[in-house]
Order: sequence, then C-alpha cells, then structure tokens
Amino acid sequence: MELSGFAIAIMAAGKGTRLKSKRPKVLHEIGGQALLLHVIAAAKTVVPAENIYCIVGHESERVRNAVASTGVGFVLQQEQRGTGHALQMVKAWFAMSGAEHPKHLLVLSGDVPLIRPETIRSICEVHLAEQAAMTILTAVPPDPTGYGRVLRATPEGPAVTAIVEQKSLTPEQLGSPEINSGIYCFETAKLFGKLDSLSTNNAHGEFYLTDVAAMLVEDGERVVAVKADSVDEVLGANTIAEMMHLDAAMRLATARRLMAQGVTIFRPETCVIDAQVEVGPDTVIEPYVQLLGATRIGSECRVRSYSVIQSSLLGDSVLVRNGCIFDQAEIGDGALIGPYAHLRPESRIGEQAHIGNFVETKKITIGKDSKANHLSYLGDAVIGSGVNIGAGAITCNYDGVNKHTTVIGDRVFIGSDSTLIAPIEIGTGAYVAAGSCITESVPEDALALGRSRQVTKEGWGAKRRAAQEETKAGAKP
Amino acid sequence: MELSGFAIAIMAAGKGTRLKSKRPKVLHEIGGQALLLHVIAAAKTVVPAENIYCIVGHESERVRNAVASTGVGFVLQQEQRGTGHALQMVKAWFAMSGAEHPKHLLVLSGDVPLIRPETIRSICEVHLAEQAAMTILTAVPPDPTGYGRVLRATPEGPAVTAIVEQKSLTPEQLGSPEINSGIYCFETAKLFGKLDSLSTNNAHGEFYLTDVAAMLVEDGERVVAVKADSVDEVLGANTIAEMMHLDAAMRLATARRLMAQGVTIFRPETCVIDAQVEVGPDTVIEPYVQLLGATRIGSECRVRSYSVIQSSLLGDSVLVRNGCIFDQAEIGDGALIGPYAHLRPESRIGEQAHIGNFVETKKITIGKDSKANHLSYLGDAVIGSGVNIGAGAITCNYDGVNKHTTVIGDRVFIGSDSTLIAPIEIGTGAYVAAGSCITESVPEDALALGRSRQVTKEGWGAKRRAAQEETKAGAKP
Amino acid sequence: MELSGFAIAIMAAGKGTRLKSKRPKVLHEIGGQALLLHVIAAAKTVVPAENIYCIVGHESERVRNAVASTGVGFVLQQEQRGTGHALQMVKAWFAMSGAEHPKHLLVLSGDVPLIRPETIRSICEVHLAEQAAMTILTAVPPDPTGYGRVLRATPEGPAVTAIVEQKSLTPEQLGSPEINSGIYCFETAKLFGKLDSLSTNNAHGEFYLTDVAAMLVEDGERVVAVKADSVDEVLGANTIAEMMHLDAAMRLATARRLMAQGVTIFRPETCVIDAQVEVGPDTVIEPYVQLLGATRIGSECRVRSYSVIQSSLLGDSVLVRNGCIFDQAEIGDGALIGPYAHLRPESRIGEQAHIGNFVETKKITIGKDSKANHLSYLGDAVIGSGVNIGAGAITCNYDGVNKHTTVIGDRVFIGSDSTLIAPIEIGTGAYVAAGSCITESVPEDALALGRSRQVTKEGWGAKRRAAQEETKAGAKP
Repeated sequence: MELSGFAIAIMAAGKGTRLKSKRPKVLHEIGGQALLLHVIAAAKTVVPAENIYCIVGHESERVRNAVASTGVGFVLQQEQRGTGHALQMVKAWFAMSGAEHPKHLLVLSGDVPLIRPETIRSICEVHLAEQAAMTILTAVPPDPTGYGRVLRATPEGPAVTAIVEQKSLTPEQLGSPEINSGIYCFETAKLFGKLDSLSTNNAHGEFYLTDVAAMLVEDGERVVAVKADSVDEVLGANTIAEMMHLDAAMRLATARRLMAQGVTIFRPETCVIDAQVEVGPDTVIEPYVQLLGATRIGSECRVRSYSVIQSSLLGDSVLVRNGCIFDQAEIGDGALIGPYAHLRPESRIGEQAHIGNFVETKKITIGKDSKANHLSYLGDAVIGSGVNIGAGAITCNYDGVNKHTTVIGDRVFIGSDSTLIAPIEIGTGAYVAAGSCITESVPEDALALGRSRQVTKEGWGAKRRAAQEETKAGAKP
Repeated sequence: MELSGFAIAIMAAGKGTRLKSKRPKVLHEIGGQALLLHVIAAAKTVVPAENIYCIVGHESERVRNAVASTGVGFVLQQEQRGTGHALQMVKAWFAMSGAEHPKHLLVLSGDVPLIRPETIRSICEVHLAEQAAMTILTAVPPDPTGYGRVLRATPEGPAVTAIVEQKSLTPEQLGSPEINSGIYCFETAKLFGKLDSLSTNNAHGEFYLTDVAAMLVEDGERVVAVKADSVDEVLGANTIAEMMHLDAAMRLATARRLMAQGVTIFRPETCVIDAQVEVGPDTVIEPYVQLLGATRIGSECRVRSYSVIQSSLLGDSVLVRNGCIFDQAEIGDGALIGPYAHLRPESRIGEQAHIGNFVETKKITIGKDSKANHLSYLGDAVIGSGVNIGAGAITCNYDGVNKHTTVIGDRVFIGSDSTLIAPIEIGTGAYVAAGSCITESVPEDALALGRSRQVTKEGWGAKRRAAQEETKAGAKP
Repeated sequence: MELSGFAIAIMAAGKGTRLKSKRPKVLHEIGGQALLLHVIAAAKTVVPAENIYCIVGHESERVRNAVASTGVGFVLQQEQRGTGHALQMVKAWFAMSGAEHPKHLLVLSGDVPLIRPETIRSICEVHLAEQAAMTILTAVPPDPTGYGRVLRATPEGPAVTAIVEQKSLTPEQLGSPEINSGIYCFETAKLFGKLDSLSTNNAHGEFYLTDVAAMLVEDGERVVAVKADSVDEVLGANTIAEMMHLDAAMRLATARRLMAQGVTIFRPETCVIDAQVEVGPDTVIEPYVQLLGATRIGSECRVRSYSVIQSSLLGDSVLVRNGCIFDQAEIGDGALIGPYAHLRPESRIGEQAHIGNFVETKKITIGKDSKANHLSYLGDAVIGSGVNIGAGAITCNYDGVNKHTTVIGDRVFIGSDSTLIAPIEIGTGAYVAAGSCITESVPEDALALGRSRQVTKEGWGAKRRAAQEETKAGAKP
C-alpha cells in the first residue's frame, strides 16, 4: 500500500571517483541491474513513480536514460556540492515548477541498493507516529569506527540529540555503536526552512544535510532515529570490490529463497540467479548455472552446469544439458535440450522435442517429439511434430538482403547435411535425402534429392601417395 | 569384516515436509546419490544386505525401487507415528515372517548420510564389550541447544542415566554438551520387550524410541553411550540448504583425498568429484571440472575447466580441453580431446588420437593417431588408425528407422564436409573428396567423389546488387 | 634498481616427497607458472640473472630445462643432505669455477613462491645497514607452534641471539611468536668460513644452515632479523592442498588489482587471471572467466562466463559471449564473438566483425564488419571486409599433406554449407551459392555454383513407410 503525503528523493548525482570508471556510480550493476534501479524499485513500493525524484548530476543524461522507463522524475544538481546542496536543488525545483511540495520527504541514496521496502515503510511510519521533523535511519555495524554516530537522548527512546562525525566524537561518545545511514525522512517545510542556512564551513567545503539535524534540535524540533534490522541494507558500495560483495550477497539470497521453495540448487553460491526468477519444486539446478531476467522454470526439471538461461519459459520435466544458452526461448514439457544448444529469441520448442549438441535455433517453432540433434542451424522456420532433422542440416534463411521462412510438415525426415534454401516448404511425410541441396518445395510424402552420383577412381590414392613420396624425396638436398 | 548377530534397521519412512518436495526425503541426493544409498552403503560394510531393513512409508514404492538393487529388505510403516512406532513395525515384521530376530539391532537414520562405517562398527563393538541393552551414539556439537541431551552416570564412564529433551532439562543439565544422535544399538529382545509399553503421551502424540532408554535404565539394564569422532557424521539434513552443505563437504573431502594422492586440483572446492573416482598422480584438474560415476583417469593427464566426465576411462597423458563432455567413453594414452567434444557412450578413442571442437561421437572406435578435429558427427563407426576426418564430415547412420554402420580403414582421408551414408565401407588408404556424398563403398586406395562440377556466372553478382538497389529505391515512398 | 655485491642462491633440489608426484616440487604450478619461476622472477628484480644460482638436485635436468630461459645459473646438489649441504655445494662451485664469490649471498627457497621483491630488497638493505654477518627473514604467524623460533636480544632491536627448533624451546621461549622463514642473507666469506664445521649430529642426519647462526653469534658476529610484512610471503607449500591455497590467493590478488583499476569482475574469486593480464576500465568480467598469459583487454568490453582467453589482444567495446576460447588471437574494437567461438592462434578479427557460435578460426584475418556466425571452420584464410560467411561454410585448407590458403575479397557472400577447396580466391563482390563445393577461383562480382539440380520423386515417402510397416509386421513372430 502506498503512503500518501510522501515523496522520495534519491541521491544519484555523484561520480564515484574511487571506482575509476567512466560509468556513473549509480549505474554500476549488481544482481543484474543498476544500483539506482534497485533503489527506485524499493521506493516504488511505497510511493508512486511520479512522487520519486532522482537527483542527477554527473553524466546526468546517461543516468536519466538508464532509468527513464521507471517513470520517476529528475532534479538536476549540476555541480556536486554536498548532500545539503542536493536538497537545495530539490527545493528550487519545487519553487520553479510551482508544484506544491509534499508534506514529507524521504531521502535515499542511489548507491545503497539493498534497502528493503519494509525498512523504507518503517521509517515513514515512525516519522508519522513520532510527528518528527526529521527521522534518521541508523544501523549498528560490528565496527562503527569512521562512521558518523547518531546520539540518542536516552538509550531506549527514539529522540536524537545529535549526529556527530567520527573526528568530533568526545572520548565518551567513541563507544556509541549506532551509525548514521544517510537515509532520512523530513517534514518538508521544516527541512526547506533550514536549507538556506547551511554553510560550507567544513573540511570538504560542502553543504551537509546532517547539519540540519543540529539546527532542528536547536529549534526544539523532534528528531528521531529508527534502527535498521540489518547493517547490510544501509551499506553503500564505494569500490567495485564492495559492489561485487553486495552482488554475491543478493544472488545467494535468491538461491536461498528458491531452495526454501523446494528447488535443489547444488553449490548455491556458485549460481547466478536474478531476483525475479521463479522455479518449481523438485527441479534440480546444478552448480555454475545462470538463471537470468524473467525466467520461469517448471517442476522436476534439471538444469545442468554451465547453462545460461535468460528470460525464458521452461515447462515441467525439461532436461537442459550442460552449456546450453537460451535467450527468450519457450520450451515444452519433457523436452531434452543440449548439451551446447543455443536457443536464440523466439525459439519455441515443443513437448518431448530434442534439440541436441551444437545446434542453434532462432525464431522457430518445432513441434512435439521432433528432433534436431546435431550440428544444425535452424532459423526462421516452422517445423511440425515427429520431424527428424539430420546432423548438419541447415536452413538457408538469408540471401544477403532478406530473411526467408522454411516450413517443414509433420513427420518429415531431413537427411544429414542437407541445405534447405528458403523460402521453401517440405510437405508432410516427405523425405529429403542426405547431402541434398533443396531449392524447390517438396510435396507431401515425396522424396527430394539434390546431390551428385558418386564416381570412384580406383588406385588414385596409391598413385597420389607415391607422387607425394617422390616429391618429398626430391625435396631432400 | 562383517559382524554376526547384528541386523540394521534404517529409518526411511519420513516425508521431509520442510523440503517442500514431492520426492521422499531419503531420495534427495548429495554427492551424486540418494541420502539413503549413502547409509545403506555404510551399513553393508558391517552386515550383509539381507540383514538390513529399510523402514519405508511415505512414497514407499518409490523408495523401494530407488534402492532395490542394493539387495536390502523392507519393512512397511504405513502411517508415520514416531520412531518407536517404526520399531514396532520391525517387531511385527519378524513376528509375521516367522524369522528369528537378530540378537542385536542397530538403528540408523536414512537422512543422516555422512555416517562412517568405522563409526557403525565402533557402536557395535562397544555394545558387545559393555554387554549393553542399549548403546547410544552421541556427539558434541559447538552448540547443543535444541538437541536431546545424553546424561552419563559419571563423566568418564560409558553408563547413561537418561536422554532428556531440551525443554525438560534442569538448569544444571542445560550445560550438558553431549547430544543424542538418534542412532542406537539394542539387544533386540530387550528392545522388543519394551516397545508395547511406549505411549503417545507427548506433544506430538508419537511413539518415541528415546523412551526405551528410560525404561531400560529403570529396569537396571545397562545403557551406554559412544561418542562420534565428528559431529558431521550424525548431522541430518532437514532443509535443502542443509543438504547442499553436506554435498559440498562430501565433494571437498573427495578432492582432498585425490590431492593427497598426488593429483593437482586447482580450486578444489569448485570441482564436483564423485566418491569412487580415481585419478593418477601428476594429473592436473583445472577449476570447474566434474568427474562423475566410476571414472578412472591415468597419470599426467590434464582436464581443463568446464569439462564433465561421467563413467569414463582415460589413459595416461590425455589432454582434455575445455568444455568436453564424456559419458561412458574410453580414451587411450596421449589422446587430445576438445575443446567442446562430446563423447557419448561406447566412444573408444585410440592412443594419440585427436577429437576436436564441436565433434560428437557415439558408439565408435577410432584408431591410433587418427584425427577428427572439427564439426563432425561420428556415430556407429569403426575407424582405423592414421585416418583424417575433415571438418564437417558426417556419418549418416540413421535412415529414419534403423541405425547402420560405417567402416573406415587405416590411413583413409575423408575430405571436409563429406557425407558418408551407412551402411558403407571405405577401404584402407582410400580418399573421399571434400564435399562428397558417398553412398557406395570405396575400395582400398581409391578416390571417391560425389559432387557437382562448378559453374561460374560472370557478372551475376554485380547485376544482382544493382537489382537489389533498384528494389530498395523503389520501396522508398 | 639492482643491488651490487649480492648474489642469490635458490634452494631447488628437493623432491617434495609429500606431494606423491613425479614432478619435482619446485616445478609444481600456481598462478599459472612453476613455483621456482615465481621466486626467480622476484630475485631478478634485485640482481641480474647471472648472479642467481638455482641449487638443483632431484630431477635436476628437468628443473634446469624448465627455467633455462630465465638465464640463471645452476649448482648441482647431487644428494640432498640438508640446507647446509646445499650451501657447501655453492661454496664448492665457486672454488671450482675460479670465479670470485659475491660479497653477500641471499638464500631463497624455490618453494616459497609468494616472496615479494620489496621484501627481498628490504632484507638486503637491513643486512647492509646493520653490517650483519647474517640477516634472517622472520614472520609472526597466528600460531607459531611447530616452527623454529628466532629469539632477539631485545624485543625492539634487530640483534638475534639464537634460532631454536620447536622441540628445544624452553618453557619461557614457547611464547616466542617470531618464526624463522628459512630465508637469509649472509656475508659470504663468513658463511663459507663456517660451512665446513656443520655437523649431521641431529635427528635427520642432515647439515643445517640454521646452525650457522649459532656459530656466528658465538664468534660475536652480528646476526639480525627482519620481519616480513605478511606471513603469506614466507609460506612454503608442502602439500598440493597448500599449493592450491597459494594459487587461489595469488589469483584473487590479481582480480583485486584489476577491480581497483576500474574493472568490474563479478565473483572475483571465481575468475582465473594471470598476474600480467591487463584490462581497461569499465570492462565487465563475468563469473568463471579465465584471462591467461599476456592477455590485454581494452575498455568497455564484456567477457561472459566460461570464456578462456589466452595470450590475446582485445580492443575496446568487444563482446565475448559465453564459452569462447581464444589463444593468441587479436580482436578489433566492437567485435562480437561467440558464444562458443574457438579462435586459435593467429586469428585476427576486424572491427565490428562477428564470429558466432560453433565457429573455429585458425590463422585467418577477417575484415571489418564481416560475419561468420554459425558452425564454420575457417583456417588459413584472408577474408576481406563486409563479407558474409553462411552457416556451415568450411575452408578446406588441408589436402592430407599441405595446408593451402583461401582468399576472399570484400563484400563476398558465401552461401551456407559451402565448401571452399584451397588454394582458391573468391573475387570482390562475388557470390557462392549455398551448398556449393568450389574448386576453382571465382572472379569479381561473379556467381559460382557447385551443386546438383534437385530431383523430386512423388509418393516415395508413402511407399517407403508402407514397406517399413510391412517389414515390421513380418518381423513379428
């Protein structure tokens, strides 16, 4: 359920200098998508997209384009002069747009991707319940050294007296375990009232949003803290190594979810499984498998190692042998695929069909019980049921300019090493002799041949070897 | 050596509700085989199969079928009403069958798969030496909380006074570190004498075998404990995640055994090696390799990453390049295979032979020094030595109904992209020209061709492009 | 900068019995090269190769050959009678050769491969600064039990009073945390002066170099210690399992270096990356990738999982799909390769070119924007730009004796399943019809065909099936 009266601002303007990358920090990927997209997805569970504002700056166009499809809005922070400055831009944006600002403003970080919807909701709820001017999300890491510390008025109560940077901590405050996550909720009017008073009188010469806490406390406003359940979800990623760590954590969580649903995943930490993947019970996933995008797999399947399944639908009892690569394929119940089958987009494989080793398919349907087991390229084809495609058979779908379609009826037998030059139609029950090049359509039940009669030259081999021997002998000095 | 007077009952009736699986719990696999098969294998090192009884219940037919080949017997526990009830069924089975019950009865759990033969034997030996009515296998885990605790009369002595569930522990007993593994040995008559007195007067309304301990102690019978060397071997797997953990532990143990025997295994924790696999010294196994079933590999081989070798025999100095898949293949000394070669059952590869990339073989022999290096399908073939099979050559072994054999003599040269239509025989020293479709056998030393003479149409390409340009131009609005 | 007056002796004579291997211990590999080569590489950063002496013994010829290309010298220790004996051989070698011995002699272990150049240099510098007779490299492991301990005169000062074996430690000395690494620097004359006084009066009956420390201290010579920054770099590998541990550590360090330079490496611990590999920023390396040898990869590339890239050069924005294998290939900017492409040595792929699935190349150039997307073998070929190579097309480069070249001009269209019999030249803009076997060169802009006209036999399929049915019926009893 969405909360009314709230907007969310997501900090996404930074460069991420420590990453040594041309790519803006919030567009680095973990768990299969950009950091910022994870944050937006969490935000959208709480407020509608039109109430979400990404504050963009470094490579702002690239960031906008990367998340445009989410429907969120953007506020430009041309120069990056600190977190307080970012919110000044938000204030200015509301002033210029003439839109009324929301009653409450939640501030998230575009590079803190593990934040959970439940936690965002919890901040907002405490913020309302406490009638706070500012609500701070905190966490208690194993070692708080280096982090800004949030000090409470009493150990039990939510009221906060100050946010203190590491270097300003008094000896007694050094032991404070609760750190500032950089995620806040504000009563917007009270926040906006303070932004102009922020100064850059600090080591980095930046406007700090944390200074607002002190100002509000001084005014007697209520500033409170909410503790996150786990430290992980407030962790930012400042280096690529840290991002890779978050990526592995996110993947493993998905594998664990599936195992709890009855999926067997051997070496779960070795699999790469996107968060939205669904797999039925009693399916076995072997080590080193990748299940990506919106893939859905039925029950009692087995996916062997080194296979990569992207955005595909698999029925029940499908066997995917080693090293298969699927992209946007659909596979019927009981089909046997691979090893080393490459099913490209719009490959639709029928029930109990077999697609074997070193076979590539693209934009085809192939019916029930049909087989293409070896070294084939099948593209732009409609293939019936009970068909046998021999080893090395190829659909020639491309004439250098256009793609053409091959239609193969039910129960057709295509001999090995045949070449079918599209557009072409092979009628139901027809045969194509091995080694044939077929240029014209074949009627039902007919046999088509397109190959030369064999000629045998006796003794040729012996003569040739003799000649080669002579040449070699002659070549000697 | 087998122990006489002992029978073994293995608890295998449970559903494993927490697994969320249609497969019975004891048929879930780790280390390449069902949990129950691991337990039966350990049991068979101590007593003959006819003295082993699996107590089956949930999906009993499926469980029976899965382990039928081990030769063990079965006792049906139709309803699952607790461990005591399971043994009541065993007692009833002996009563009905008229067979004399064994003097001693060892009780194992079908879902505790890491139990070692040495430990089973040790329980039996202590049981005999102590002349015990009941002998309990215990373990000392890092944290015993939640487990039933075994209390000894004295810290040093084997005598046990009670088995106490977690919730019934007195404050002093809370510190007891020794847990009940659920594995016991009984003097059968004394066990059977107590089974009818068990009650279901407990939280789950089940008959508990642990209650027998209290009854025996009360009668002044000797109840003793034996501590397992490691906690691992008494660990059950109640979730898929726990099973996967046991699986990884079992695999790593195998890799460590092989390394201790002189095999180099890079990233040993990434390899999947079945327990019975043997590998000679100075063979190098790269990361992400799988050695399965009864595979045996000689010395000084190298198996590159992503290869999966199932039930195959490799000689010495074999190089298996990346991504090869073997199933029931035999490979001679010094052969070079792959990358991406697929050797299916009954592939017999000669010494120093080469099978190259994207080549599939099935039911073939290929002789010493022969080569099939690229993009071939070779099935149902007998191939001599010193043969060269060109790129893309295919044996057409299937006519839609039957499989036929291809015979190729020594020193034959099969040109690229040839199609050999079986049944066919290519004589010693013969040549097949590239691109030929060969339908009749070829004598020794002959040359066979089956291809069309080339026709060249000058200027055709230029005209075609011009026409295409025109079409495109015309297509514009 | 090289240090003058120093020579380095590297212990490389041992068998490594615990490895159960025929391969000499120092030739076992981690991080892609022999242990000894790692040590030699570190040594060469400090002194020139001619001042480095490998002390070889077990399988001395094999060891010499394996490191011959480094230019180091060798001293033979025929029998292995201890570390002191090894240095006696060095002394004898200088005596026999008539060469003047170096002023200082640093002793390294050929099986301690993680020693860093900085550490070697630091030992030498302290040795000079302290005007020591002997300088000992020490380390402080988490648990020193079992190691020889280095005792200092004062906790802070460098002066050493003794090296004491574990079993000879007094109760007070048991707590000494500083262990002897077995790496030393000596003033050569003072070392050589003591070597003849070493005795074999110890448990193993060997001459121990550690005894020299006691002799020098007794003489009032200065013996000092230098502590290594990390324990890792003084760790030897006595078992294969330990070596594999060092291997993983070395690989992970390389992955971390690249990540710090802006390379995204998912699951960095799963990748196998050789130390000298370079990768540009914003390139993404997926899990389970191997980058070997002198590979250099540009910026903004993506290398998908299960690919193995050996000694190859990749430009910018190259996409390497899953399971590709490159060896000594060169790939231009923006090329798309794979999945399952096998680029063998001397494959040069042009900018924006596509090499697709199940394609093997060897010794070819292929120009800008050219495509060979499916199931091809291209060997010994020069292919222009804008060329389209159809599925299954093959260059027949081998006639059984020699290899021949195929030349394909710009903008040529090679139809699917064509066979090009080299030597042959296909002129600019020419077409080869699908399924053709081409034996003669094709002029510019021409069309070449080499295939049979199709023949169709109506009703043949129906008759055949009827006959098959009859046979089956007849076969029944």
